[in-house]
Amino acid sequence: MHKVCIYDSTLRDGAQAEGISFSVEDKLKIVSKLDELGVSYIEAGNPGSNPKDLEFFQRVKHMKLNNIKLTAFGSTRRVGINVEDDNNVQSLLKADTPAVAIFGKSWDLHVEDILKTTLEENLGMIEDTIRFFKGKGKEVVFDAEHFFDGYKQNREYATQALQAAVDGGADSLVLCDTNGGCFPLEISEITKEVCKRFDVPVGIHCHNDTGMAVANSIVAVQAGARQVQGTFNGFGERCGNADLCTIIPNLQIKLGIPCIAPDKIENITSAARFVSEIANVAHNERAPYVGNSSFAHKGGMHIDGVVKNPKTFEHIDPSSVGNERRFLMSEVAGRTTILSRINQVDASLTKNSPQTKQIVDRLKELEHQGYQFEGAESSFELVIRKELGKYKPFFDLNHFKVIVNEPSREEFSSSALIKVNVNGEEEITAAEGDGPVNALDKAMRKALERFYPQLNKMRLTDFKVRVLDSKTATAAKVRVLIESSDGESVWNTIGVSTDIIEASWKALVDSIEYKLQKDMEG
Amino acid sequence: MHKVCIYDSTLRDGAQAEGISFSVEDKLKIVSKLDELGVSYIEAGNPGSNPKDLEFFQRVKHMKLNNIKLTAFGSTRRVGINVEDDNNVQSLLKADTPAVAIFGKSWDLHVEDILKTTLEENLGMIEDTIRFFKGKGKEVVFDAEHFFDGYKQNREYATQALQAAVDGGADSLVLCDTNGGCFPLEISEITKEVCKRFDVPVGIHCHNDTGMAVANSIVAVQAGARQVQGTFNGFGERCGNADLCTIIPNLQIKLGIPCIAPDKIENITSAARFVSEIANVAHNERAPYVGNSSFAHKGGMHIDGVVKNPKTFEHIDPSSVGNERRFLMSEVAGRTTILSRINQVDASLTKNSPQTKQIVDRLKELEHQGYQFEGAESSFELVIRKELGKYKPFFDLNHFKVIVNEPSREEFSSSALIKVNVNGEEEITAAEGDGPVNALDKAMRKALERFYPQLNKMRLTDFKVRVLDSKTATAAKVRVLIESSDGESVWNTIGVSTDIIEASWKALVDSIEYKLQKDMEG
Repeated sequence: MHKVCIYDSTLRDGAQAEGISFSVEDKLKIVSKLDELGVSYIEAGNPGSNPKDLEFFQRVKHMKLNNIKLTAFGSTRRVGINVEDDNNVQSLLKADTPAVAIFGKSWDLHVEDILKTTLEENLGMIEDTIRFFKGKGKEVVFDAEHFFDGYKQNREYATQALQAAVDGGADSLVLCDTNGGCFPLEISEITKEVCKRFDVPVGIHCHNDTGMAVANSIVAVQAGARQVQGTFNGFGERCGNADLCTIIPNLQIKLGIPCIAPDKIENITSAARFVSEIANVAHNERAPYVGNSSFAHKGGMHIDGVVKNPKTFEHIDPSSVGNERRFLMSEVAGRTTILSRINQVDASLTKNSPQTKQIVDRLKELEHQGYQFEGAESSFELVIRKELGKYKPFFDLNHFKVIVNEPSREEFSSSALIKVNVNGEEEITAAEGDGPVNALDKAMRKALERFYPQLNKMRLTDFKVRVLDSKTATAAKVRVLIESSDGESVWNTIGVSTDIIEASWKALVDSIEYKLQKDMEG
Repeated sequence: MHKVCIYDSTLRDGAQAEGISFSVEDKLKIVSKLDELGVSYIEAGNPGSNPKDLEFFQRVKHMKLNNIKLTAFGSTRRVGINVEDDNNVQSLLKADTPAVAIFGKSWDLHVEDILKTTLEENLGMIEDTIRFFKGKGKEVVFDAEHFFDGYKQNREYATQALQAAVDGGADSLVLCDTNGGCFPLEISEITKEVCKRFDVPVGIHCHNDTGMAVANSIVAVQAGARQVQGTFNGFGERCGNADLCTIIPNLQIKLGIPCIAPDKIENITSAARFVSEIANVAHNERAPYVGNSSFAHKGGMHIDGVVKNPKTFEHIDPSSVGNERRFLMSEVAGRTTILSRINQVDASLTKNSPQTKQIVDRLKELEHQGYQFEGAESSFELVIRKELGKYKPFFDLNHFKVIVNEPSREEFSSSALIKVNVNGEEEITAAEGDGPVNALDKAMRKALERFYPQLNKMRLTDFKVRVLDSKTATAAKVRVLIESSDGESVWNTIGVSTDIIEASWKALVDSIEYKLQKDMEG
């Protein structure tokens, strides 16, 4: 099947998302990552509307790129202005990229209500602008904004807009569902008609306002489109753009349509996480292919099935996208699941060993107390070690005291005092923090770092609180989940108590014990 | 166009999601909310695999439901067992629901690799089990597990599985894409063939492993399916199930296919948020229709377009799903919505009153800090009163101190000391509690009861903690929501801070102030 070009707009349309903005540094890092992955085009900015983007285009020129064609984005010339005299057009030229994307109106409603000009003039704006950039030696991508809505209202005019682009010399015609309101069957049909009519390659650009941006992009490819525009992790205005992290595996693995090098697709999970990290947003863990839950099985029958034959409950092999299968620990999970964890600590145990039963019983008892190990596998490993006698504590708590004062005369309202004992040596210290848990966390690490200097590499990266049985109100049980990292790996621990401080303490202790245990085993 | 039944499985398949587990109380609340919304079926549990579900089915019987048909879920009888002797079948019967959903295998691979029986025996298992439940007077939904994968491998056998269900008396045939790996065009084609072949109504059940669960459900309806199974917010195993919060508006508003009462669809945004709240997971703010960002415009040209004519950049009117347009970094948003709340305090104010603008500004500032008043309307009423000068505090805090000791020699590890001032009179007291918040709550009430004896009728009935921006770990902001009751009415308040004690304090103070204000106005 013909190759499909992946056209990424994370740095331009993706930056329209609520809560996302990229610095020049961020943008350079993402360009480099997507170049490695083998994306064909990056639409990296709109120099006309955002002058800061020019700085990026200056700096990116010094980067060695193997796969990506850099593209700058801008509109057609304005109404009643010569194309050479248009500031936006001049800014776009200054970006000095091999390709430019020019967006123009193809919905008559927009020409009349927004541009407030004649249908004729708009066609001239499209043609002039594209011819100008072709004259400068650029590859020109024409984005037909609102193409599908326009086509449904006035098929003839929408087609004339594409024709004007072709007459100006456009290298590709991109059909946009700008408002994200279209459905797969209509996208398929309209794309087919356009592909039949024009010889120039056709692209697709979808938004997710009806939850169908990925499906709309896929059916457009099946109808003949050869370029797919989207963003990493689906970042974008409102409900987001078509998610390339889903589209690339859908095309390449599921449909066998090449779009990036075959040996690169395994890197898509880490690339997706990298982009979330740079954008500083929580990664969508249940995203298709690239989330932490994407291949996580919880139902006992599903786990049993996957053990017998992975194909029974997995549509692809998780490793083909660089992801992993996970069996979640929960009351619904069977003994098989738990055994695989137990065998990581002691490979000799079987389903019928008395120790296995003992651990399963202990797990049930803890779950009854409110523990839930599916998000806290490191705490579960410590439970197994304790039950098997393969655990030696790294420190003992003598006592701690946490004090909260309100109003506070200090920067921090909370302080904690702690006394610990390590191999017979005592250490007492104190710390202040933003709230009692933060103060306790700081004090504990301060007390232990003398004995275990490697703890200074470790940090808490996530903290979650869930009130169980919240009807008993402030005396209710709370479950605290902590995620920790030392730069090399990430681990999760849990604590449960009616007292939030005690629950946090238990999760903190597990986190530190797990780290020290891990380092000792090297 | 024919009506489509909405079949919700949030409480069964949704509970297979990583990080989600519902208590019996949680389930009852969700049933009641979805009944109000006008969903047709709720698949509420799997009593065979989870004995706790039986308690739920006992309790839900006492609830008055107007729209929902309760459904219990379970498998066909096991291999080589008479249907009456199968424990799971008996548990399913004990659930005592008007409808049952029976899932059976329709992919030959599963019959051979998982059930390890003959293709013939599996057909008998489907037919026997359905006939058994029809004999007990149940409506029977047949879920053909892995139907599409099965059909693609062995069309004849998959069709025989449906025929066995029809022969047993099934009331509907649900085609499942259990592994979530199918694409819209094949779903459309296969569904069309099945609808042509069978007279029994056909349903569709999709998973989101290729990001197309919504699209697959929609094209199946367009191909003739009359029942759509899914979950609220798309909760479910791995990448989740088809999201009913997207599907319902897609069908009803966009395609004009009725599925819930026309006057109920405006409640879908609040119902979606309610389900996230009960599940205690962060709501997906960029979800189609029901997210906070769903109609949030950031690009200057987009905002300009929407002001000129909303249709230019919005595929539907946000108010039709009970959501709102937002212009990011602008103050145009939201005023109409909150005017109704303002008018409850001062009926004379209009959209253009300067006080209205002042309240809107204050609200935005608080939202920016992490407040969210959807679940805390009593706190919002206090904000309005404060801005309008219609608020007199009932007491002043002089100071409090909370101390947590670990290990503790007392029954309670936490104690709180508090000093308050009421009309010039001082009161200092202390209390112990199960954790610092409980101690503080008790001490405050003890201090105030001398002045306001009616506080002894009031109690806290719910307490929830959400960590905002949890990546900053133990120094992260937390949002505390408290529900209180005095036997006559129930009210909700909120507090936000990086310190969980301070956040709880703010919510507690609002709760008491609201109660006293309410009693005074009597």
